[in-house]
Amino acid sequence: MTNYRTIDEANKAVIDKIIASAPFLLDVVPAKSVIPALDGQVLLHAGPPIKWEEMTDPMQGSCVGAVLFEEWAADEDAARALLADGKVQFIPCHAVDAVGPMGGITSPNMPVFIVENQTDGNRAYCTMNEGIGAVLRFGAYSEEVVTRLRWMRDVLAPTLSAALQTMENGLNLNVLVAKALSMGDEFHQRNIAASLVFLKEVAPIITDLEMDRNDKNAVMKFLADTDQFFLNIMMASCKAVMDGARMIQEGTVVTAMCRNGKDFGIRISGMGDEWFTAPVNTPNGLYFAGYSSEDANTDIGDSAITETFGVGGMAMIAAPAVTRFVGTGGFYEALSISNEMAEICIDHNPNFAVPTWDFKGICLGIDARKVVETGITPVINTGIAHKKAGIGQIGAGTVNPPLECFEKAVVAYAKKLGLK
Amino acid sequence: MTNYRTIDEANKAVIDKIIASAPFLLDVVPAKSVIPALDGQVLLHAGPPIKWEEMTDPMQGSCVGAVLFEEWAADEDAARALLADGKVQFIPCHAVDAVGPMGGITSPNMPVFIVENQTDGNRAYCTMNEGIGAVLRFGAYSEEVVTRLRWMRDVLAPTLSAALQTMENGLNLNVLVAKALSMGDEFHQRNIAASLVFLKEVAPIITDLEMDRNDKNAVMKFLADTDQFFLNIMMASCKAVMDGARMIQEGTVVTAMCRNGKDFGIRISGMGDEWFTAPVNTPNGLYFAGYSSEDANTDIGDSAITETFGVGGMAMIAAPAVTRFVGTGGFYEALSISNEMAEICIDHNPNFAVPTWDFKGICLGIDARKVVETGITPVINTGIAHKKAGIGQIGAGTVNPPLECFEKAVVAYAKKLGLK
Repeated sequence: MTNYRTIDEANKAVIDKIIASAPFLLDVVPAKSVIPALDGQVLLHAGPPIKWEEMTDPMQGSCVGAVLFEEWAADEDAARALLADGKVQFIPCHAVDAVGPMGGITSPNMPVFIVENQTDGNRAYCTMNEGIGAVLRFGAYSEEVVTRLRWMRDVLAPTLSAALQTMENGLNLNVLVAKALSMGDEFHQRNIAASLVFLKEVAPIITDLEMDRNDKNAVMKFLADTDQFFLNIMMASCKAVMDGARMIQEGTVVTAMCRNGKDFGIRISGMGDEWFTAPVNTPNGLYFAGYSSEDANTDIGDSAITETFGVGGMAMIAAPAVTRFVGTGGFYEALSISNEMAEICIDHNPNFAVPTWDFKGICLGIDARKVVETGITPVINTGIAHKKAGIGQIGAGTVNPPLECFEKAVVAYAKKLGLK
Repeated sequence: MTNYRTIDEANKAVIDKIIASAPFLLDVVPAKSVIPALDGQVLLHAGPPIKWEEMTDPMQGSCVGAVLFEEWAADEDAARALLADGKVQFIPCHAVDAVGPMGGITSPNMPVFIVENQTDGNRAYCTMNEGIGAVLRFGAYSEEVVTRLRWMRDVLAPTLSAALQTMENGLNLNVLVAKALSMGDEFHQRNIAASLVFLKEVAPIITDLEMDRNDKNAVMKFLADTDQFFLNIMMASCKAVMDGARMIQEGTVVTAMCRNGKDFGIRISGMGDEWFTAPVNTPNGLYFAGYSSEDANTDIGDSAITETFGVGGMAMIAAPAVTRFVGTGGFYEALSISNEMAEICIDHNPNFAVPTWDFKGICLGIDARKVVETGITPVINTGIAHKKAGIGQIGAGTVNPPLECFEKAVVAYAKKLGLK
């Protein structure tokens, strides 16, 4: 190592950058306007690289929906033919500074949030949350889904963009997150407080915008009713922060975790863009009426960037109410999960005190070495998609990455350091 | 007792009515339109009955502000002369189905919320929250204060009234409270989540109202910025619920607690409208920069109706973040306070699970007998007013009622039953 005497010292530099990060929400714009790779028939997907034929059914369903949204094909059959013929290029979101929930399918004309980490000037992108029920990210692609995506493109995004433009410097996300953390959010399966704080920030501005009255009303209603709206902003925020932190190109801090339905992939600070993968697990949790674990798709999505930052399942104790949704028992089980997660982390983040953790900070810096030493893997709170495309979300639960990802990463870094 | 074999059985009937209550927010209207006693130069005040000359300075300051607001006098000197000359009649809020925070001063043209307990059809009233800083309820009466009150009368109240009129049956407050309880509110010193949920309910409706654009914008901004806005709605809700419960005219359940700066008064279910009073304490807590306990006014306000219902200081564990505001330590101190409060209550309310209390329900039914037996008095979370009128809030903390109130009530009820 050129800059650091020890791995601990390198890791300290990485977590110091996480602490010093300053993510601001700047705008909502068409994905292609900020992601040059989205030129022509190109789709982004969640997780490490994957081919069309390897994708699980819901991710393929999301692709069908995106093709219909973009009007690259007139119907489902034509869309599937186009995709199967290799006419659509696939790129992981993470390869282009983006993250995507569940399928993570992002097409050129979908609006994305721009979050800038003002400490380092780097930016990250994520699509907007569509709400619940039949939604693209869970593999649904009906007329209703595509129509909603077009409304989000034509009405919701321009309205929020106009609102954000009135803020001199964008919206300070650390302030918003610290506030919602004292209101029971863990920012992965529970964003109800953060979504309301976001509403409170933009509602007076939107009220004052010159625009069609029905559109304005529909936007306000959508924001008021979409409890997980902030999730996608948080994902972009965590991505911006972790990408800032991994500018320190040494150490064993986990800088990304993601899943494509086939593989779970992690990155560590000392190994740059390299993915360390192993076959994904399937989430355990609670199912909506009429569904069971038999129906569950394998683990999918880039949303584990929230756990990488220290929230989501890592911060279960911050959101005791979420335990009844993801099936992890009561308050003391939540406490025990977060206490166990602290064992694989380097420190607590002093910027984000958790009142329900007796004001300890959220987990800071998952150390891949500690994961390997203890055998404790991060707990990820996640939605569960039906394994058949078109149905959508059927439950919520928790999932763990395979230990193998961390073993591979640590071995590779040891080799790079000439230790093995 | 005619209807119940034992005091426990009577108390069970009282708490069953608390559980069965269904408070709905119906409207915001001028106080005089629903409180016939507000006819002419009449003011409502917090706490048990009190005369002008017995009032502490901030309550007198509130009276001055109300007289100026109503234009019963042209300036402060004239207002004080009018009040000192006995030209203004004083009635306790509780005597006319109302409650008022801090000074509790309510004048005929101030708007009040109407909350109806749809189980019993009884109604309760409370003024609207003015925000923080120089506000009437803490004894400030400057031009700024009076101007804001007039804006609330002329713009805020009619707008909220119009919004509430669009709801078929009013706003279901139990649903709102249960939601905010999982978001870290205790509904006395912390109403930030409930205020945001309220905003979310009315914002899309307000967006759609035909009204002056600047007014609409000002209303939205006021609601977005006023973290304690829901407190006054909660007070009216608790009053409506407890007044429904005390229709069972037996038992030792505390049905009201309030303070006028001189006396602390309680009511119990078996003694109807009678107040059992003793001299108030002074709150202990944390002070804003530049102030200390030397500056604190004695305990004041009807807001302890929230503790009577089982929230506020009784539900400290629901709001661990509030402990840093009222000076009661960390998470485990909050837990220990709520555990101790459970000792003087009859049960837990199954409608309002507290995730941070491992999903136990909020405290249900303070039993005056248990208070006397254990010597444990309810913990009340409260704002602290400067003892000089015109300055306003200088901190927040906790306060306990004098044990004497409960002793007097139990003795009186024993006498009524012929036991003593």
